[in-house]
Amino acid sequence: MVQQFKPGQLVQLEYNGKLLEGLVMPRSLYEDEKHITIKLKNGYNIGLDSDKVRLIKVLEYENTTQPTEENAFNEIGIGPRVLIMGTGGTIASKVDYRTGAVKPAFSAREIVDMVPEIENIASISIKTIMNELSENIKPENWSVMANEVYKAFSAGYKGVVIAHGTDTMHYSASAVSFAVENPPGPVVFVGSQRSSDRPSSDSAVNLQGAVTFAAKSNSSGVFVAMHAGLDDNLVAVHRGTRVRKNHTSRRDAFESVNDRPFAYIDIENGTIKREHEANPQGRIKLMPNFLPRASIFNFYPGISGSVAKAVFAGDPLSIIIEGTGLGHVSRDVFPLIRDAIAEGKFVGMTSQCIWGSVEMAVYETGRDLMAMGVVPLGDMLSETALVKSMWALGNGLDLKAVMPLNIRGEISSRRPVEK
Amino acid sequence: MVQQFKPGQLVQLEYNGKLLEGLVMPRSLYEDEKHITIKLKNGYNIGLDSDKVRLIKVLEYENTTQPTEENAFNEIGIGPRVLIMGTGGTIASKVDYRTGAVKPAFSAREIVDMVPEIENIASISIKTIMNELSENIKPENWSVMANEVYKAFSAGYKGVVIAHGTDTMHYSASAVSFAVENPPGPVVFVGSQRSSDRPSSDSAVNLQGAVTFAAKSNSSGVFVAMHAGLDDNLVAVHRGTRVRKNHTSRRDAFESVNDRPFAYIDIENGTIKREHEANPQGRIKLMPNFLPRASIFNFYPGISGSVAKAVFAGDPLSIIIEGTGLGHVSRDVFPLIRDAIAEGKFVGMTSQCIWGSVEMAVYETGRDLMAMGVVPLGDMLSETALVKSMWALGNGLDLKAVMPLNIRGEISSRRPVEK
Repeated sequence: MVQQFKPGQLVQLEYNGKLLEGLVMPRSLYEDEKHITIKLKNGYNIGLDSDKVRLIKVLEYENTTQPTEENAFNEIGIGPRVLIMGTGGTIASKVDYRTGAVKPAFSAREIVDMVPEIENIASISIKTIMNELSENIKPENWSVMANEVYKAFSAGYKGVVIAHGTDTMHYSASAVSFAVENPPGPVVFVGSQRSSDRPSSDSAVNLQGAVTFAAKSNSSGVFVAMHAGLDDNLVAVHRGTRVRKNHTSRRDAFESVNDRPFAYIDIENGTIKREHEANPQGRIKLMPNFLPRASIFNFYPGISGSVAKAVFAGDPLSIIIEGTGLGHVSRDVFPLIRDAIAEGKFVGMTSQCIWGSVEMAVYETGRDLMAMGVVPLGDMLSETALVKSMWALGNGLDLKAVMPLNIRGEISSRRPVEK
Repeated sequence: MVQQFKPGQLVQLEYNGKLLEGLVMPRSLYEDEKHITIKLKNGYNIGLDSDKVRLIKVLEYENTTQPTEENAFNEIGIGPRVLIMGTGGTIASKVDYRTGAVKPAFSAREIVDMVPEIENIASISIKTIMNELSENIKPENWSVMANEVYKAFSAGYKGVVIAHGTDTMHYSASAVSFAVENPPGPVVFVGSQRSSDRPSSDSAVNLQGAVTFAAKSNSSGVFVAMHAGLDDNLVAVHRGTRVRKNHTSRRDAFESVNDRPFAYIDIENGTIKREHEANPQGRIKLMPNFLPRASIFNFYPGISGSVAKAVFAGDPLSIIIEGTGLGHVSRDVFPLIRDAIAEGKFVGMTSQCIWGSVEMAVYETGRDLMAMGVVPLGDMLSETALVKSMWALGNGLDLKAVMPLNIRGEISSRRPVEK
C-alpha cells in the first residue's frame, strides 16, 4: 500500500473516512514501513497507518533534477556581497522533503526566509551549481566548484559559501583548497547534520557562521564552518585541508585534525574569534583539474594479496598508504610497493591512526620503506593526500616534489609537539 | 663507513685514537646517516661521527629469530598467578637494542628488573609465544595467541597479559576477544609507545596497569591497557573490541570508541577504578580459527572501478564497507555490491567517521543499500568488523546472523545517544 506513495508527491487521500490533502514526506529514522507521514497545508506533519490510507489522486509531483538558474544572483540583504552556492545535501532540506531527496534549486528568498538573520550580515545571492548527494560527488564536480569559485571572485563577490552534503564535504573542501590558489577572500563550505525542520537542526546556525566568516574575514583560503560543540552559539571554521568528519550524527562532527580550528564564530554577536591570519600571497590562480588515478591503500592484517595487487599493480598512478602507527606495513606488501615505484608510480605514507605524524626513521620497517622510495607525508590526512595527488596528477605536477610540501596548510613543517 | 655496523653487534672500534667496546644501537629519530650510536659497557650511549670510526672487530652479533623456551614459566613475585606472553614489539625494548629490532626472548627476571613494581602485584611468569613486529602480525598469529590464552587458563593462571607491538594491537585484541569465549579471568594486551630507555617511556606504567588488572579484576574478557592521558598515574583498560590506536605517537594513543573505557587503574595505589562488571557467562570456549578472506572497502570520491572490482568481485567472501556518514557509497558502486551479494558474499556497513553509528534508514541511499542486502553494523569499528568476519568465516558461522549481533561488546544494541 505504502509503495504507491512517493516522497515529494502532493496527494489527495482518504483516511478513516476523511479527505486529506498534503505532501508525502520521506520516512524518517524513527518510522517503520507501516506508516506514512503527510505534511498538511497548515504545516503540521501527521503519521498515518499505511494500511488504512487510500490514495485518491496525485495532485503534483516535483522531481526536477536539473538546476534552475531563474533564482540565481538575486541580491537580498545589506553588507558585503556573498554568493551562496548550492550543490545538494541536507543543508537545503527544507526543500528536501519536496522531492524525497534534495530539491535542485532554491531561491535567495527561500534561504533568507529560512535563516532571516543572514540578511543583516551580508548581501546574499544564491546560485545552484549542481545537485548531488555528497556520496555521489566526484572529482569532476570538484572542478565545477573550483571554476564557480573563480567566477564568483571575478564577479566581485567578497566571499563565497558552498552548501554541501556533509558526507564528503571534507574531500571537496580539500579539493577546492588545491584548485584555487590565493582566493582574495574566504571560501566557506557549510553543511547540516540534521534537516532544518527538526528541532535540533544545525543548518541555521551553521549557515549564519559561514556567511559571517565569508562576509567579515579578510583571510584567503578554503574552509569548513560547522558547530564547534553542542552549543548553538559557537561555529568552528576549519581549514579545508585539515578537517575530517569524525562522527556520523553529532552536530560537531567536523574536527580539525593535527591543527586547531582556523577561527570561531560567535553567532549571537556576529563576531570572528581567535582567527589565524592568512592574507592572499599573490593573485588568484585556478588549477581546476583532477585526474582520479589515485588510491588509498588501507593496510590491515591479513589483507588479500589480490586486493593489494589491484591497488599497486592496477590503474592508480598515486597510492596513498594508510599505514599502521608511525607509517608501517607488513613486509608481505614490500614487493608490490617496490614494483609500483619501479614503474614510476608515486607511493606516499600517511597513518591510519588519523592523529599524529608518520615518522618513518624510527623503526627498521619505516627505514626500509623509505629506502624503497615511499614518501612520508607527515601529519597530512590521508583523504587530503588522496585529493592532493589527484590534483597534482590532473595538473601535470611532479608528485615526489609537491606531495611532501606544505602548499595549503595541509602538512606541518615543524615536528609535531606532544600536547 | 656506517654500513659496516649493524644494530645489535657488540663491537670493538677505534675512534679518535681510542679503543672502545660497545653495542651498536639502531638509529633514532633524531640522528642522521653521519652518526652512529654505541652503548658502552657502563650503560652510557655515545654518538660518534661515522667518518672517524674504524671497526676493529665484531665480538658478538645476536640475531636470533626463534623464541626460546628456557626462561618461560619461572614464577617471580607474590600474589595471583599472572602469565605475561611476549609477541614482540616496543614493550620489550630494553632488549630491542640488542638485535636492532626486537629480541625474541626475555626472562621473567629481566622484566621484573625493568619494572620491579609488578613483583608486589602478582606472581609473574613469562612466555615468549612469537616474535613479530606488530605490522607483520597475521590472522594465523591471532590463532596462536588464542590457543596460548586457553592453555594459560587451563594451567590455572588467574589472568594473562599479552605484550604486543602497538601498531596492530587493537586488531589482535579484537581477534582474541572473538576466539576465546568466557575466559575465567582477564586477558590484557599491553604495549608501549616509547622504548623503555627513553625518559618519557610508558612501558613500565602500562605494564603495571596491565598486571594489576590481570591480577585483581574478576572480569571475563579481552582488554587493552594503556595510558589514559599524559598522567603517569592513570592507565585505561579498554574493551578489546572497542579500542583503536588514534594517534601515532602519544602515550594515550589508544581510545575506546563509541564506549567508555572498561576500567581505569590507579598506578600509585594499585587499585581498579570505575570498572564495568563482566562475569563469565559460562565455561571457557575456544574458537581459534580465522579465514582471512575478508576485506575493508574504504570508499572515497573517484575510487577506481578496478580497485572496487578487486574487492567485490575478487577473493573476499566478506566485505566491510567503510561508507561515508551514516553508511553511504556512491551509486556507481551499487552494481558491484549487488553482484557480490548475489554471489552469496557478505557485505556489511560501517562508517569512515569512526565515531557514531551507521543509520541506513535515514536517507534514500542507505535504504537502497539495505534493500540490496547490505547489513548495517551499527557503531562497530570497521577493524573489529573485519576481524569478526574473518573469525566467523574461519569457524563456519552464518555471517548474516552473527555479524550484527553483539557477542563481545562490539556493538551497541541501544540507539547511541548524542552526548
